[in-house]
Amino acid sequence: MTDAYVVGVDMIKFGRFPEKSVPQLGSEAALMALDDCGLKIQDIDALYCGNLGQSSGMVGQRILQQIGQTGIPVVNCANACATGATAFREAWTSVKAGLYDLVLAVGVEQMGKGLLGSAGGATGIPKEGLLGSGTMPTVFAEAGMEHARKYGTTFEQFAKVSVKNHHHSTMNPKAMYQIETPLETVMNAEMISYPNTKLMCSVNVDGSAAAVIASERKARELGLMGRAVKVRASVLTSDPWQERDLVMPDVNTCTRKAAAAAYEMAGLGPDDVDLIELHDCFATAEILHYENLGICGDGEAGRMVDDGEVALGGRIPVNVSGGLLSKGHPLGATGIANIYEVSTHLRGEAGQRQVENARIGLTHVIGLGSACGIHILEKAAA
Amino acid sequence: MTDAYVVGVDMIKFGRFPEKSVPQLGSEAALMALDDCGLKIQDIDALYCGNLGQSSGMVGQRILQQIGQTGIPVVNCANACATGATAFREAWTSVKAGLYDLVLAVGVEQMGKGLLGSAGGATGIPKEGLLGSGTMPTVFAEAGMEHARKYGTTFEQFAKVSVKNHHHSTMNPKAMYQIETPLETVMNAEMISYPNTKLMCSVNVDGSAAAVIASERKARELGLMGRAVKVRASVLTSDPWQERDLVMPDVNTCTRKAAAAAYEMAGLGPDDVDLIELHDCFATAEILHYENLGICGDGEAGRMVDDGEVALGGRIPVNVSGGLLSKGHPLGATGIANIYEVSTHLRGEAGQRQVENARIGLTHVIGLGSACGIHILEKAAA
Repeated sequence: MTDAYVVGVDMIKFGRFPEKSVPQLGSEAALMALDDCGLKIQDIDALYCGNLGQSSGMVGQRILQQIGQTGIPVVNCANACATGATAFREAWTSVKAGLYDLVLAVGVEQMGKGLLGSAGGATGIPKEGLLGSGTMPTVFAEAGMEHARKYGTTFEQFAKVSVKNHHHSTMNPKAMYQIETPLETVMNAEMISYPNTKLMCSVNVDGSAAAVIASERKARELGLMGRAVKVRASVLTSDPWQERDLVMPDVNTCTRKAAAAAYEMAGLGPDDVDLIELHDCFATAEILHYENLGICGDGEAGRMVDDGEVALGGRIPVNVSGGLLSKGHPLGATGIANIYEVSTHLRGEAGQRQVENARIGLTHVIGLGSACGIHILEKAAA
Repeated sequence: MTDAYVVGVDMIKFGRFPEKSVPQLGSEAALMALDDCGLKIQDIDALYCGNLGQSSGMVGQRILQQIGQTGIPVVNCANACATGATAFREAWTSVKAGLYDLVLAVGVEQMGKGLLGSAGGATGIPKEGLLGSGTMPTVFAEAGMEHARKYGTTFEQFAKVSVKNHHHSTMNPKAMYQIETPLETVMNAEMISYPNTKLMCSVNVDGSAAAVIASERKARELGLMGRAVKVRASVLTSDPWQERDLVMPDVNTCTRKAAAAAYEMAGLGPDDVDLIELHDCFATAEILHYENLGICGDGEAGRMVDDGEVALGGRIPVNVSGGLLSKGHPLGATGIANIYEVSTHLRGEAGQRQVENARIGLTHVIGLGSACGIHILEKAAA
């Protein structure tokens, strides 16, 4: 089985682009990722496209209409907030299967305004919802409150996640926002669903990200190993069945299962990881995922934030990009944007926000409904 | 690279089931395919789900909610009328990549009433259409007329395709219709878009189909090789760019490219194929695809129908299931329903409509927008 490498990767600056079409947005990232490794669309063997809002609308093929209809296979994937990660993973799988040597994965989304919970209508998700009642803000508020009840996690600790991620994004020119948000500002913002205020909810933005994945042979042949990033693990899980009296799915179990499988596939543990881009769709979620991903013990997540261990310069920086809270969360693009961020650090090209000596990074997304995607990436041996 | 085998496969009887949900429909075929090989959902390593109408609605996960939430990876795919074939192909790819030993592919669709061209609204396809103007009936009417102008193909020859496929479906209890339609009935039916009358257009029905794909090692270990069907080729293409003054994409080029690649992958030619299930979304399309798939020379398709070469008992029976014209065409299910039909013949279990001594079969779907999927299947060596 060949190893597979990210050889080109990029994302557009996230923002609001109502004047553009979804394929236009996707095309921009696709061309940027190709440019990043000096390739043309004519070099690519297959395209995997992740998009939720127009998932039945052949977005991948419409991207090719913009950048070059070469007749290659196109697969369109949708998997809630794990859509981009799923497209990346399917692309990776096709390289692992020996079907292709150079595959392009594109994730793209044009979001409506408003909170995530309201995105359902716009994205064609059936009116009855994915899993019965429950909107995104209440699901993640409840999950945070369960953590607070169990471990004494405070409103302030949850809020500090947002302060950290907004601070990180001041160093990321591709994030939606580059604004410091002091603790009082976060805590005094409009309350959406306790304990998450408006500044503790991810930002609905339009965006796209893309990656070129190459077989080891091809990456060497093209002289692309110098900036290549090895995919050490790619894992996808769904919710296991369980008795629960909450309306929400168990976002914790799903992530823990995926993390265990990813560490096993990579032959690594959480201590080996130098940076993480995880699914901070709400500030409460980030707290839960420190524990779910095993970077601290159960109940220790609040302290991790207090101690600055997850901030840039800390023991294991989390969401140095600004995360979903400030970089923004265009659903179908997020999974590949995470891979862009981690790859940029592994390449030592992250500028002011560079995590020093980053060698191994982890990306995590979770889609309610349910899908958890984890990738572990490693700087390629020169 | 392991070989991959279809070890279980089934479909529900196509029909109209407005009282059921999409996940319910999908679950029925999933359980039937599992029953077909004596497996349970707990045995399955991953699920690939093809559905167009609710493609952003986590249909795969909602199927698992009905038949067992085991926490396995779920990927949801959409690719117009190639949706089911794409889900099957992604499942096959994951086995080829060595990721999984037993994978379930499900295709499901709940169609609205009316012709294919009107399905756009219901399926969330953007209002501007997939490729600008043009509805399905006019696209395939124009393509047929181009063939008629070039080769003298007659209205009667196009109509005979429908007579043949309706006759075939009288022997298929899972087809939507089991009704003979004499030539005059077909020709005198309501004209939809010349030369296709209403009986020469595929039937909008609800349906689902599912397949269990196993690695060779697993198929042997479970003693499932006796009824197994080997996947000799799996190919997906999209439209190559070309200058055309017609509004339609070039359904011919896309299929020809896929066919050439599939024959090459399988190490076979059209003469080796014993039966074909091809995408007769309109009677005109079937005529074109005889030539596109290489079972006759250009301009000979009309004669193929006249001579009965493509009827059951003929040289190379096409759409013995009744095809999309009479079995019905639930978009996301069609690709896997084709695989069910061909597998059933290769297993020698097709009853009254059995193609004698069938050893190799080919399935073909084409989705405008664009995607062409071809699979070549072979009876497994005992």
